[in-house]
Amino acid sequence: MTAQQCFALTPGEPAGIGPDLCLLLAQQAQPAPLVAIASRELLAERAKQLQLNIELLAVGPQQWPDHPAAAGALYVWDTPLAAPATPGKLTPANAAYVLETLTRAGQGCLNGTFAGMITAPVHKGVINEAGIAFSGHTEFLAELTHTEQVVMMLATRGLRVALVTTHLPLKDVAAAITAERLERVTRILHADLQSKFGIAEPRILVCGLNPHAGEGGHLGREEIEIIEPTLERLRTEGMNLIGPLPADTLFTAKYLEHADAALAMYHDQGLPVLKFKGFGAALNVTLGLPIIRTSVDHGTALDLAGTGKVDTGSLHVALETAYQMAASRRA
Amino acid sequence: MTAQQCFALTPGEPAGIGPDLCLLLAQQAQPAPLVAIASRELLAERAKQLQLNIELLAVGPQQWPDHPAAAGALYVWDTPLAAPATPGKLTPANAAYVLETLTRAGQGCLNGTFAGMITAPVHKGVINEAGIAFSGHTEFLAELTHTEQVVMMLATRGLRVALVTTHLPLKDVAAAITAERLERVTRILHADLQSKFGIAEPRILVCGLNPHAGEGGHLGREEIEIIEPTLERLRTEGMNLIGPLPADTLFTAKYLEHADAALAMYHDQGLPVLKFKGFGAALNVTLGLPIIRTSVDHGTALDLAGTGKVDTGSLHVALETAYQMAASRRA
Repeated sequence: MTAQQCFALTPGEPAGIGPDLCLLLAQQAQPAPLVAIASRELLAERAKQLQLNIELLAVGPQQWPDHPAAAGALYVWDTPLAAPATPGKLTPANAAYVLETLTRAGQGCLNGTFAGMITAPVHKGVINEAGIAFSGHTEFLAELTHTEQVVMMLATRGLRVALVTTHLPLKDVAAAITAERLERVTRILHADLQSKFGIAEPRILVCGLNPHAGEGGHLGREEIEIIEPTLERLRTEGMNLIGPLPADTLFTAKYLEHADAALAMYHDQGLPVLKFKGFGAALNVTLGLPIIRTSVDHGTALDLAGTGKVDTGSLHVALETAYQMAASRRA
Repeated sequence: MTAQQCFALTPGEPAGIGPDLCLLLAQQAQPAPLVAIASRELLAERAKQLQLNIELLAVGPQQWPDHPAAAGALYVWDTPLAAPATPGKLTPANAAYVLETLTRAGQGCLNGTFAGMITAPVHKGVINEAGIAFSGHTEFLAELTHTEQVVMMLATRGLRVALVTTHLPLKDVAAAITAERLERVTRILHADLQSKFGIAEPRILVCGLNPHAGEGGHLGREEIEIIEPTLERLRTEGMNLIGPLPADTLFTAKYLEHADAALAMYHDQGLPVLKFKGFGAALNVTLGLPIIRTSVDHGTALDLAGTGKVDTGSLHVALETAYQMAASRRA
């Protein structure tokens, strides 16, 4: 049997459901060695609260596993908390701990220890309260890996939706759709579908910005002035880009069944359909990074931490996708 | 057997698929007398082209039917064309004909001849080419019925989505979300769900304008400054309004299963999900009119006219909904 490369799993905010999800997941065997980067004590306590019997196997830079843990066991790279973690109670004292787990995972991906990283949710607010500027996993990992532009893509079985703009007030969206941005985002999406998803000739559906994709200029001119010329330019390089299409036409079986991804111009144009289709089994992928990173698509759900009433569906597909991406990358 | 009130069906653009859909539909018996308002000659010719044997029964103001036609028969209120209609070939000469069919249907609804009207698609462009200002069925019927504000709602089995703004360039949407408009639209939606859909206490989910419904003001302030205060004011009148919710949370089973309608702030926030869920079986309802009007959710599909390769799914649900609305109104 060949030694297998490890994957890093970060349970994120210790007062949230991340630790619970990782423990619930460890009840089943994984196809690759998976290393939780977290406080061993936290995981042991949370397992007790959830009445789960999970064996926590210590690993770390001195010794990485080369085969998957059995069902009921989880590899842990112990990363100590600064203060005890109580389900549902945010503590700024543990903000640095959360970031340390991300740094360990990200650097391990960069240096080849890990084939990819899968993240459970963090809580932005409590990290900011601790006096640390932090606007999310994505930005943190972009900085750690010296990446200028990343692209947010959400996915579920049968649908991938990448976004040209993400967390902007709606009033600022139209001005943010520039030819430069659209070109950069499309290039990253196309390149990562090839290199990380193993799709030789990705077929990408592109939304218009306006209703009915502008209806020939009657409902907005960005399609004519920005989107169409940019797509046309990229097509001359051989990219298979369909659109700009009206968003309420694009997201129908007729188009989707022949596509590898949809590119939406903004958050609420693309994500409601994705969440509707994939609820409970959707994941977030950061494209453009030199590493593989997938994430759950939900938040810390503080009120559910320690209760066992959580659904591992999203973490499950986040793991599954990270494994597939790593395999495509090796191929 | 009690005499039944008629419904009006307008096949719309004579060169499009509207006549085809009406004829295909007439193969099955309807639960109410349904009167196609169109050229009898056009329907006879199109039936021949489609190799459909449909009996066209002449009706009109001198004699309305009081029971449904049998399968294979269609009541027709003959409304002559100005020029022959060829599938796929638009003729401005017939623009006045198209509007005459809508006027007959609308006035028949106003004077009680018809319980409601169901419209197949018209072609805006060719009506404008004929020198007639026309921006769509909805605006035409609003004027005919002296209605100041109408609301566009799309529906499919299990989901209704109404829109605060409709055919606006995206850059103009944020400024169009005013307290006045939101209040007017919400009142119409609420009132029509009661009076035309028979829902005593409608439960309405309301989207935010910005991603994550503004995330407490970090991603836009319209939720705080406009949407929340407006909903709060309307709640004091007893309306059951949930939100503002993030659009990618609202359109998930957890929320939708307990709701009667969703109110989206703009076109591409609400309609992609609706079309994704309901493709081929979605319809358009105009709320706020003193009459019942439903419509197919698709266009004239000129290239498919006369081929028989058309799907009656949308017309079918548009009829079904009009019948249900009329029954709720009588109740």
